[in-house]
Parts: sequence; C-alpha cells; structure tokens
Amino acid sequence: MNPLAKRYLLAPGPTPVPPEALLAMAQPIIHHRSPQFKPILAKVEEDLKYVFQTKNDVLILASTGTGGMEGAVTNTLSPGDKAIVVRGGKFGERWAEICGAYGVESINIDIEWGRCVKPEQIAKTLEEHPEAKAVFIQAHETSTGVKFPLKEIGEIVKDKENTILVVDAISALGAMEIKTDEWHLDVVVAGSQKALMLPPGLAFVSLSEKAWRFVEKSSLPKYYFNFTKERKALAKNQTAFTAAVSLIIGLRETLKRIKEIGLENIIAYHQRLSKAVKTAIKAMGLRVFTKENPSEILTAVEAPEGIDAQEITKIMREEYGITIAGGQAQLKGKIFRISHMGYVDEHEMIMVIAALERTLIKLGYKLTPGVGVKAAQEVLLS
Amino acid sequence: MNPLAKRYLLAPGPTPVPPEALLAMAQPIIHHRSPQFKPILAKVEEDLKYVFQTKNDVLILASTGTGGMEGAVTNTLSPGDKAIVVRGGKFGERWAEICGAYGVESINIDIEWGRCVKPEQIAKTLEEHPEAKAVFIQAHETSTGVKFPLKEIGEIVKDKENTILVVDAISALGAMEIKTDEWHLDVVVAGSQKALMLPPGLAFVSLSEKAWRFVEKSSLPKYYFNFTKERKALAKNQTAFTAAVSLIIGLRETLKRIKEIGLENIIAYHQRLSKAVKTAIKAMGLRVFTKENPSEILTAVEAPEGIDAQEITKIMREEYGITIAGGQAQLKGKIFRISHMGYVDEHEMIMVIAALERTLIKLGYKLTPGVGVKAAQEVLLS
Repeated sequence: MNPLAKRYLLAPGPTPVPPEALLAMAQPIIHHRSPQFKPILAKVEEDLKYVFQTKNDVLILASTGTGGMEGAVTNTLSPGDKAIVVRGGKFGERWAEICGAYGVESINIDIEWGRCVKPEQIAKTLEEHPEAKAVFIQAHETSTGVKFPLKEIGEIVKDKENTILVVDAISALGAMEIKTDEWHLDVVVAGSQKALMLPPGLAFVSLSEKAWRFVEKSSLPKYYFNFTKERKALAKNQTAFTAAVSLIIGLRETLKRIKEIGLENIIAYHQRLSKAVKTAIKAMGLRVFTKENPSEILTAVEAPEGIDAQEITKIMREEYGITIAGGQAQLKGKIFRISHMGYVDEHEMIMVIAALERTLIKLGYKLTPGVGVKAAQEVLLS
Repeated sequence: MNPLAKRYLLAPGPTPVPPEALLAMAQPIIHHRSPQFKPILAKVEEDLKYVFQTKNDVLILASTGTGGMEGAVTNTLSPGDKAIVVRGGKFGERWAEICGAYGVESINIDIEWGRCVKPEQIAKTLEEHPEAKAVFIQAHETSTGVKFPLKEIGEIVKDKENTILVVDAISALGAMEIKTDEWHLDVVVAGSQKALMLPPGLAFVSLSEKAWRFVEKSSLPKYYFNFTKERKALAKNQTAFTAAVSLIIGLRETLKRIKEIGLENIIAYHQRLSKAVKTAIKAMGLRVFTKENPSEILTAVEAPEGIDAQEITKIMREEYGITIAGGQAQLKGKIFRISHMGYVDEHEMIMVIAALERTLIKLGYKLTPGVGVKAAQEVLLS
C-alpha cells in the first residue's frame, strides 16, 4: 500500500466521524455538572427526540449499545418473566443471551439468517404465550442486513396491555425510517457509533409511557443502567452518573447536521447509496446475501464460490486501505458487508466497488474491470 | 467575566485533558476489530499494568467508573453473599447501594465523613463475619478527601481464603501510591476522567488470581460487564463488545506521558501541589474539612461560618471561570473541593488560591489579600 494512502472506514460501526464533531470533541473538557454543560445536554436531548421521532425522553448512557440493550431488559422485566425474542442473526441472539443472563425465559422465534420475520409469526407466538411481557427484536439485524417490519409488529403489540415491544435500533436509527411514537415502539435502543456519526461510547434509550409502567414494576437487579434515575437526572439536564461529556459535545454537532439536512433526506441518501452498491454487486455476478427485506444500511454479499470472504476483506484493508466488515459467527468467511451508513458519500461507494473489482480479480474471480462501477454510475445518474 | 477569559477545570473529575490526547482523539476513527487497533490496545494494556503496578490483566470497559464498580460486585459474588463495606462518604455508600441492588448483604462499617477507617476495624469485622466474601473500600473517598490505609488492610485480607479486597481507586489511580500486587489488592477499579487525564467513558479493572477464582464461582447476573468475556477478548487484544476506540487512542497518549514522567514523580508533584493548597487554606484562616489522612488528590475546605459553599463555587465559576467542586450529599453547601489531580500545574494552584481570596473577600470574609498566595509560594519555594 502506498504509504500516503488514505484509509476509508466502510464497516457498519464504528463509522467515520465528521471533522466538526472531531474538532468539537478536541476542545478543553468541561464539567458534567456545570452550567455550561446543561444547555448542551438539553439541546442534544431535543435533537435526539427528533431523530427518534418521539415525544418521550431519550436517556443517554455512557456505554456502547449493548449496555442500552441490557438496560432495556433489566429495567422493564422481573425474574421469571417470559419474553419473545426474534432471533434472526447475531444481535437477535444477543437479546436472548441478555434475557438468559438475567433469568428471563426467552421464547425464541428463530429465523434463518438473511430472512425476515413475518408479523403473523409474532401474532401467533403472542397468542400462544399471552404471558410474554416483551417482544425483543432488531430494527435492522446488522449481521445479515435484514430490516424487520416494525410498523406492522407495532400494530400487533400495541393493544396487548401486558406486552411491550423492545427494539434494538443501534445500527438503524438515523439511517432508516423509524417512527418510534407513530409505530408504537415502546423501547428503542440506539448507539453513537453508527448513523449518528460519533465514536463508540454512548447508548440512547427511549421509552413509551406504557414502557415506563413496566419500569415501575420491574424488579430485575440493576444499578449502572437505571432508567428511573436517568429520567430524574434528565429532568435537570444531567445524567445520573458522570456523563461522557466529550462524546455528548460531539453529538451536538452531528445531530445539528442531521437536523439541518433533514432525516428524510438522509434516509433517501442511504437508499440511493444502497441501491448503487447492490446494483453493482449484482452486475459483478455476485449475490446479495440478504434474502428478504434488505436494508439501506449495508450490503451483505456472498463470497464467490471458492473464495474466502476473509481474504477479500484482508486485501481490501491491506492493499487498498478500505475497512469493510466480514461475516459474524456462522457467516464468518462466507459473506462480507459494505456499509453505506453515516458519514459516507457516493464517491466512496464508487471507490469501494472499484477496489472490490480489483480485489476479486486478484483472487482469480472472472470479471471485466468496470462492470460494477458502471452499474453503480447508472444508478447514481438516475 | 471578561469574554476572553479562559476557563479552568479544577474539580476532581472530569479533569483537563492534555492537548496531545485531545488531538489524538480528533483523528479519523478506526475499526475496533482492525489490525491497526490491536497494537494500540496492546500498548495501552502494557502501560495500564505499569500504572496499576500489577502483573495481572487490566480490563478496559466502555463505561464510567461506576460501571466498573458494578462489574466488580456482579463478577465476584453470588446472591445472598455477605460483604463488608466501608462507608465513609458518598462513594462508600455507592458500594453498599450496588450490593443492595444485587441482593448482596452489606455489613457496613460507617465512618464519620472526613475521618479514616482503622485497619483494626476491618480485622474485627472480619472476625465477626468470617463469611464475608469481600471487603469493599475506596482508595480515596472523593467526597471527603480521605485516603484509606490500603496497604495495612491488604495485609489483613490477604490470608483470608474466603474474602477478597475490592478497591474503588477511580479518583486515586495515577495520583497517589497504589501498589496493586504488592499490597494484595484483589480488585482495583479506575476511571479515565481523573488522574489518567482523559474524558469520561472508560473504566478499568484489575483482578488478582485470587479474585479470578471468585469470578469462576460468581453467579450474580451480568452481561455487559462480563469480566470472563473481557479477559478472553483481551488475550486477543480486543474488547468483548465494541471498544470506545477514540478514548483508548487518547489513553495511549496520556499513559505514554505518565510513563515518561514516572509514576513516583507524578505522585510527588501531586503531593507538592496538595501541600501548597492546604497550607494556603490554613493561612487564610480556613479549615481543611478532612480530619484524618487527607489526600494529595484534592483539598476539601469548610466554608467559613455564615457563607454557603455553593456561593463560593458559583462566584469562582461565573466571575473567574474556575470550576471547583462543591460538597456532595450531606456536605452540600458546607464544603468546597479544589482538585490538584491530573493535568494541572503549580501556576494554576496560585491562581485558584488568589481567586478564592477575592471570592471570599467579596462574600464579606475578613482576609488580607495575598496571605493565601504567600503561603502557597513559600511551599513552592521550599
């Protein structure tokens, strides 16, 4: 690799951070209980509500997204509770693991990786298990690139007094349409290092009034992730424990940019990039791994017959300076994932397709250089 | 306040971050599973062992210190266990609260705030409660400015096969002497935003081989803070969940500086600053709040008769741009705290004393301007 070559990050988190956020975080640090910090937290909170499309509080936790997921379980449920978990990938499995760690019995709806759950499956499982206190699901399963039909599932769960819908939107929020209030999503968890364009280290959680009623009754043990304490602190523009001040100051910048551009425009841009990449992949004779409901957040691609996907990501990184993601767990070596989420643009999509062409040719895959790029160009011209 | 006035942060966390760390964190973000990140984590780990003075692994968690404290409880104990907690301030209370949240019965040794626990009290309580699985204590109780006698307590606990010593060193590590291995400190918890000179968002935990045996038997619920998983990940220069990459990159810079200067020199410098401030405080006719074992980390000062400490911190901040800390919980309005930990120097100590003189005079306290500064100068000259 040319020693002056730039590095490009096109993995589904962490994603690149815009310079104005990097520079804001490089300013001298301020105290988390100071009057200077409170208006920053208030502004961030206001803008988070916009991105979450909710009127409810959005809690801000100093952890990565998984901490928010754990809190979503421990703050709403009690020992011995049952919960329905949609397991369609690594992160669905994570919901079940957290439930298991805390003595919540998970009723798993197992979906073949790469396929989508049907709302009827949720309805049926809820009928069979009316005692289930929660339905845990992903907005977007990062390991497979599948979007789950939250709106339809929200319609099913909303009238069940005894059940809340809990959504891991860590890789989804800010990149695809998520209407928290309108779709009756009771708990939505997000993270800083995806479409919100920040370094890892912040989790966000919104809760509906219905979810807060579950919080009141919840008796699972918790301390660091205590939503009741966080809500009280937030009312005073604070966090319960020390706030990750520099990340929150960076967040003010990225949320400002998101609001100026408009969430709908950002989502449309992701869709455009996604279409360009997916069209290019097909033009190159490759297969998109995601069988149903592929997301606009990333493109998961099957490695061609006889080529290890890890070889592809390795050459992309070592020879071309481009970090894309491999497959996780059972998909390791079988797929690679190109992210088009957050602070990335159409030129980078052309670049990654071109580098992928060169990589595959090096690995012996039969391909006329340029066919992928041409297909992507055509989408970008349309 | 002069609109061009600089702001100074002299509170016991978060503390100022050196420019080389701020700039390192402002660099484009890299992926937490990439080959570029692994040597950074390995280097940070090596230097953390130096600061912890341990040969054992130091786990790196994406949370603030309290998350590390929670993990220290949930990873070593089981439901119904008993533990001895030294409660000599707000953070001692936090240990008891975490135990309570997780169903661990705390046997509290209550110490008057501002005073120090005697090693004999620990020995006696352990004799009365040989079933206690852990002794929870602070290295430095940030709310009162008291240092606890860890070395002596380590001698007492080390031979109890059934009991570990768990130390909250969040505000202490890197600022005062803590010899993790030599003093038989089984679990030591630290945080990024104190003497390690970084923004909040990282917790660190070291565990002795004895503590790891407790981890094996522990059955309290945990998921995000899972020390076994973290240890396994660390062996591959990774973290179990997404690493807070930018903070860890900043940490590489601050640890490098700490190592270059030498821990013993840094501790001596803290002691020098502490002596200058404490001497100045007394010369001004004020009383140091800390009755026993005052630390070199901060100086806790009683507000003079008839003056609310919150008025003092307010004028210091609003008129002079200097953030010092007030009292916490029962000490609110009664004391204020000047930190001399981390990235601060002797000139700032002179400045804070001078501004404190002007503040107190404004509030009607009888004082000849300069007496505090003169006393501090004399210490700095000696």
